[in-house]
Amino acid sequence: MKLSLLIASVFIFNLATAEEGMWPFNQFPTEQLKAKYQFTPTKEWIDHVRLSSIRLAGGCSGSFVSSQGLVMTNHHCAHSCIEQLSKSGKDYVASGFLAKKHEDEVKCPEIEVNQLIDIKDVTAQIKAKTSKLKGKEFNEQLKASMSEIEKECADGSERIRCDVVTLYHGGQYHLYKYQRYQDVRLVFAPELAIAFFGGDPDNFNFPRYNLDLSLLRVYDQGKPLVTKNFFKWSADGATENELTFVTGHPGKTSRLLTVAELEFLRDVRMINDLIYLAETRGNLTQFQQRGAEQKRYATGRLFGIENSFKAKRGGLQALLDQTFFASKVNEEKQLRQKINANPKWKKEFGSAWDNMAAAYKDYRNIFEAHEFIERTIYGSRLFGIAKTLVRAAGELPKPNEKRFREFSEASIPQLKQSLFSEAPIYDDFEVENLTFAFTKARETLGADHPYIKKLLGVKSPRQLAEALVKGSKLKDIPLRKKLFDGGEKAIADSQDAMIRLAATLDSESRSIRTKYEDEVETQIKQAGEKIAQAQFAVYGSKRYPDATFTLRASFGQVKGYQQKGQEVKPFTTIGGAFERHTDAEPFALPKTWLDAKSKLNMNEKFNFCSTNDIIGGNSGSPMINKNAEVVGLIFDGNIQSLGGDYGFDASVNRAVAVHSSAIMETLKKVYQAEHIANELGK
Amino acid sequence: MKLSLLIASVFIFNLATAEEGMWPFNQFPTEQLKAKYQFTPTKEWIDHVRLSSIRLAGGCSGSFVSSQGLVMTNHHCAHSCIEQLSKSGKDYVASGFLAKKHEDEVKCPEIEVNQLIDIKDVTAQIKAKTSKLKGKEFNEQLKASMSEIEKECADGSERIRCDVVTLYHGGQYHLYKYQRYQDVRLVFAPELAIAFFGGDPDNFNFPRYNLDLSLLRVYDQGKPLVTKNFFKWSADGATENELTFVTGHPGKTSRLLTVAELEFLRDVRMINDLIYLAETRGNLTQFQQRGAEQKRYATGRLFGIENSFKAKRGGLQALLDQTFFASKVNEEKQLRQKINANPKWKKEFGSAWDNMAAAYKDYRNIFEAHEFIERTIYGSRLFGIAKTLVRAAGELPKPNEKRFREFSEASIPQLKQSLFSEAPIYDDFEVENLTFAFTKARETLGADHPYIKKLLGVKSPRQLAEALVKGSKLKDIPLRKKLFDGGEKAIADSQDAMIRLAATLDSESRSIRTKYEDEVETQIKQAGEKIAQAQFAVYGSKRYPDATFTLRASFGQVKGYQQKGQEVKPFTTIGGAFERHTDAEPFALPKTWLDAKSKLNMNEKFNFCSTNDIIGGNSGSPMINKNAEVVGLIFDGNIQSLGGDYGFDASVNRAVAVHSSAIMETLKKVYQAEHIANELGK
Repeated sequence: MKLSLLIASVFIFNLATAEEGMWPFNQFPTEQLKAKYQFTPTKEWIDHVRLSSIRLAGGCSGSFVSSQGLVMTNHHCAHSCIEQLSKSGKDYVASGFLAKKHEDEVKCPEIEVNQLIDIKDVTAQIKAKTSKLKGKEFNEQLKASMSEIEKECADGSERIRCDVVTLYHGGQYHLYKYQRYQDVRLVFAPELAIAFFGGDPDNFNFPRYNLDLSLLRVYDQGKPLVTKNFFKWSADGATENELTFVTGHPGKTSRLLTVAELEFLRDVRMINDLIYLAETRGNLTQFQQRGAEQKRYATGRLFGIENSFKAKRGGLQALLDQTFFASKVNEEKQLRQKINANPKWKKEFGSAWDNMAAAYKDYRNIFEAHEFIERTIYGSRLFGIAKTLVRAAGELPKPNEKRFREFSEASIPQLKQSLFSEAPIYDDFEVENLTFAFTKARETLGADHPYIKKLLGVKSPRQLAEALVKGSKLKDIPLRKKLFDGGEKAIADSQDAMIRLAATLDSESRSIRTKYEDEVETQIKQAGEKIAQAQFAVYGSKRYPDATFTLRASFGQVKGYQQKGQEVKPFTTIGGAFERHTDAEPFALPKTWLDAKSKLNMNEKFNFCSTNDIIGGNSGSPMINKNAEVVGLIFDGNIQSLGGDYGFDASVNRAVAVHSSAIMETLKKVYQAEHIANELGK
Repeated sequence: MKLSLLIASVFIFNLATAEEGMWPFNQFPTEQLKAKYQFTPTKEWIDHVRLSSIRLAGGCSGSFVSSQGLVMTNHHCAHSCIEQLSKSGKDYVASGFLAKKHEDEVKCPEIEVNQLIDIKDVTAQIKAKTSKLKGKEFNEQLKASMSEIEKECADGSERIRCDVVTLYHGGQYHLYKYQRYQDVRLVFAPELAIAFFGGDPDNFNFPRYNLDLSLLRVYDQGKPLVTKNFFKWSADGATENELTFVTGHPGKTSRLLTVAELEFLRDVRMINDLIYLAETRGNLTQFQQRGAEQKRYATGRLFGIENSFKAKRGGLQALLDQTFFASKVNEEKQLRQKINANPKWKKEFGSAWDNMAAAYKDYRNIFEAHEFIERTIYGSRLFGIAKTLVRAAGELPKPNEKRFREFSEASIPQLKQSLFSEAPIYDDFEVENLTFAFTKARETLGADHPYIKKLLGVKSPRQLAEALVKGSKLKDIPLRKKLFDGGEKAIADSQDAMIRLAATLDSESRSIRTKYEDEVETQIKQAGEKIAQAQFAVYGSKRYPDATFTLRASFGQVKGYQQKGQEVKPFTTIGGAFERHTDAEPFALPKTWLDAKSKLNMNEKFNFCSTNDIIGGNSGSPMINKNAEVVGLIFDGNIQSLGGDYGFDASVNRAVAVHSSAIMETLKKVYQAEHIANELGK
């Protein structure tokens, strides 16, 4: 999730004038489009766009771009797959990948594609069961209801995925039903050097010059998926001021949160995360100096960390902007005044904000323990596998509605894909990640914390990490299957070092999770429902919900902006990339580009920006025109977009995309991929 | 500077009841001592204590503990020296160091000892020149006056050091005159494993078990300094509830700062510093995995970074405590109300707080450029030397009062000691530190910043770092001397890569410094003077000034405290260290201790805590009793002391010290250093 600095504007309710909004497809912004752009999409248009847009369950967006199941997304969304398919001497991340024919397309071990086939409001169904409950009974019943509804919806089919989604932080519950595809194969990826030209220094900046593209293909029962639902290719691609739509899966926004929640993010969560990410980054950067292999297999993780770091740093900056934060405080004050002025509302909702603040006060007290004991797999694939196996053995025997949500029936297919993934695991990388994470856990909880004593015993973090990696055979996938199928007895009998550690830590880990769920989450969810209802009461239900990694449409225009008194034009050209080229990473173009220079149209549009409202999770989203044709491929936001988590400033917040024409031009002239270029949109 | 989490108490003015205060020796807290402890120190007592206490100019405290110039300080205060005297196969940091006779004592390349011989109030002298000036003329004259007064005070002698110190952030200017000693030799250091037993996990915690001791000897004209001013050794050492004094050099506190200044620290400075330190830490930790040599020579720097990180993290936590910060806001509001209620005061001081806020608003705009362009040597000794040489060539031809303050006549001896230091420089360490720092500069300022383009050109940070280290001969001390003596022409003619880079960057670097000094520092200093005067007007001048790395006395009592409902006793024992021992770093006792176990008194007091008010810079301070005898050696504060930068909470803030008896016991029984044990206090 790449997309996601500085914003000083207030959250805007005026629907007619702003491009703000990430709209669910059952709440399509038809009115606003008509008022501002005199465009009224038909039901067919909306359905076609919905079915042509897809989600990568791991955290990205994409779209079908041919009748043969070809999927367009970002390079960085397929980076893990490309890295997992690489090995020593065959580094597809560096060299790129191109399948000349279907047989050369290689399955990604961990990619799942979801196509949204239905949305149903299940709020009434859930509230019928929860509305009279309080405390942990409320939370338990809420989760039980979700698991039940999802199970019933999927009806035993692993080809169907059903997720109950909490909208407006508790105001509504909607059931999202997807077609699920787990056979997804790599078709094309350019070299990282051009996919991420400019690297971290240019990330979240504009102007840009990135071919952040990968093409995947969805297979159904061993054959390329034949589908009618795909986007055609625009002949000219995006033009200035054109109306554009982005249909994708923004991961999370925090625009409707209360002041207490924002303070928690500002004063606790973000600072902790940033410090952890920064130290991890330093560690990984230096780890990569060990050699070419280490550089190769640590690149994906390092990118993820640098990307998160930059996004969160920008988000924190927005929260630290005193004017902006004061506007949030004022907004809440006004809402509460309106609620308190109405006796019925006051009785029903009046105490919700204080309850939310109390929940976060409790959360602060257990935040670190919850993060370092339960919410972590210590950066280790092996420990992650062990923890999942141990938990599965404990959870799966329970009835569906009593399990932790990630072990519910509806969650099993994705859990198995990840658990039995053939992605390679590297011993030295495991040791470093574990050593680092154990050290941080000890630092945060203290050397004398009972959990840390149980974790480390008399070993140092490095001694433990080395012993664990040496003592574990969990790289062996049949062994994982055996342990999964063998349940509690198999886990109890296993002498595998990782399994033993995960089993030893499980009771403490469950204990802090229960404390969090019963004492904190319960309060947050109950207060969240009340606050959402209060917002509906005062403002009506025409506002869009915060992002929830569900399909949303945003509309906007291709437009430049002003930065430090200078005009930033909306388009860059392929020629611009050659002007920015040096011989040193990350500003070195790949050899294929240097070789093709004379053939390329230097004036061809390369990247561009628009006013569409997007955030992390939107990576890989198609940008389409009124005719539902691809005009671009979203891959980033500008630095000003990083405050977008908390509010949208239409004057400077920009989405950044690869122009559709640059994709065509370079597939043909740099990559000799005429066969793919010809398939696009057909 | 090691000494420096959580504080929720208000700054307390009540002089009679609290132990709070870091008192200058010309403002000794005689009244408070009499009122609370019925102890009235004589002038002789105060003078003797002053002259027996010393400062390590690099950032620590210490004391004379024998008539032969023996100096007691912390191991971590001499860590750099011990590391600099080590080499491959002879690692005194790991093995410890013991000189059997004077001839075996080895000179530390960069330690300067200062003994305070006089304090003089020069406020009137300075104000006579500056009081009618405004803007940058004020600031320039202020600095010129300081340089003139210092030069006159030292009167051409390098054996005298004179510093004009700004107290109360501008309320007073005092001239501190020191005897300067640059021939300081290492006598004794234990193994790091016991000096820093528990390592970073136990740092800033109590109970503790650290022999954080080193012994140095001051030489005068080639011979051990003979002195009457030294502390005798207490027969029993510190006892519970005993009145104790700490006489040392607290580096910096921020208790008198305005809200705007605290907000800048909280929202800008601390977060930036913490993130930078965290990433550096990750990088260095992994760099140490390259091999035993890298581990050896990166240990000191890593310790410094981890120590700063932990101290700042605790400091930020105090600022993020909403109750505490509200108390600061309220305190300022009350002061301003009192000022505004008096028309004369209002006219004179009323606008100072708004001016201070405006200064910090301007500072925020140039903060990053100032940090990354002027206030950095990119973590590189070689670049630091090059930058100093280039600057010296530009500054030294100017009259004393026109120079940058660090090139004033009074500053030359310390500058030369550092510039011509024989401390070893390691190529790979230089390359890593430079690569890291260049990468961060580019990340912060942006790849397209004119300064970054000038710095990197078409090179990557690593390519530039490697070229610089390969292309520089500045390890050669005679070359440094030649370039220093050769001045501008020598610099212009030099083809040394580091010199050329420093020379190329000098104009941008000077430019941002001038902008900072003229536009920010000037405003801060002028507003600071007014605010200090306003505080004097309202509260009188009986408050102690914020710490300024000048000699201060604090008084207190040996006392435990309550933590999470548990009583923390004030003493630990030598036996406790053996109980905490494991075979893994940082909880592994050194072999010498394990071997000596049967001889050691397990019940002997090892570390203890007291209510003395200390902070970073106090490391190495003697803790003495009413008879001016050593009862302990300050080396740390507890975790609750980390908010001490902003306020003092007498209920839980504790100073942490090595007990004097543990020093005697282990010198004799672990280190067979009877000759030193016998010298102590004699």
